[in-house]
Amino acid sequence: MDAMSAPIEAVLQALADPVRLKMVRQLAERDGEISCSGFDVAVTKSTLTHHLRTLREAGVIQGRQQGTTRFNSLRRNDLDLAFPGLLDAILAAPAVDHQPSGQPHAISG
Amino acid sequence: MDAMSAPIEAVLQALADPVRLKMVRQLAERDGEISCSGFDVAVTKSTLTHHLRTLREAGVIQGRQQGTTRFNSLRRNDLDLAFPGLLDAILAAPAVDHQPSGQPHAISG
Repeated sequence: MDAMSAPIEAVLQALADPVRLKMVRQLAERDGEISCSGFDVAVTKSTLTHHLRTLREAGVIQGRQQGTTRFNSLRRNDLDLAFPGLLDAILAAPAVDHQPSGQPHAISG
Repeated sequence: MDAMSAPIEAVLQALADPVRLKMVRQLAERDGEISCSGFDVAVTKSTLTHHLRTLREAGVIQGRQQGTTRFNSLRRNDLDLAFPGLLDAILAAPAVDHQPSGQPHAISG
């Protein structure tokens, strides 16, 4: 993939989903690759595939095929270059333990 | 409104929409209040109302009623306290000139 080409809105949209944010947190903690079956998220395989594609299209992750396995990694350097401080600010936010349905908590306003 | 109670996902979701991000940019540039009719966005009044509610419920803005006019302002201090560096990183991103339909550009992946 070329250098970061996604607008900030696409990156925010990709990271706004609780399941996708959890996957990105896991990639950041691993600081390496995670195969498609290696994510600790309670979603079906097809949903996981959808989430991975969304993250990839937004330029947040990249994939590497090795045999029959696809390995995913965070494009941290590209993100930091395109949107300095953004990923660090998001990863520093407290992780909310969501239900498998992936709905964020209700907000009192 | 109480202190920031929205999870990071809700804040990202609120800011991921091109029209809402444009409104937040205008509030940040103004560094003050903008009435509901004062935003420079090409949407209907009901859509604007929806966007304002989304931003308010995510804790991004607050409203102040004065007579028949509602004034909106950015909750910058609350945001900076809850998610240090997040708003600055997002506002520093280049603004894309979206069409009135509000769709971000297609992304080549």
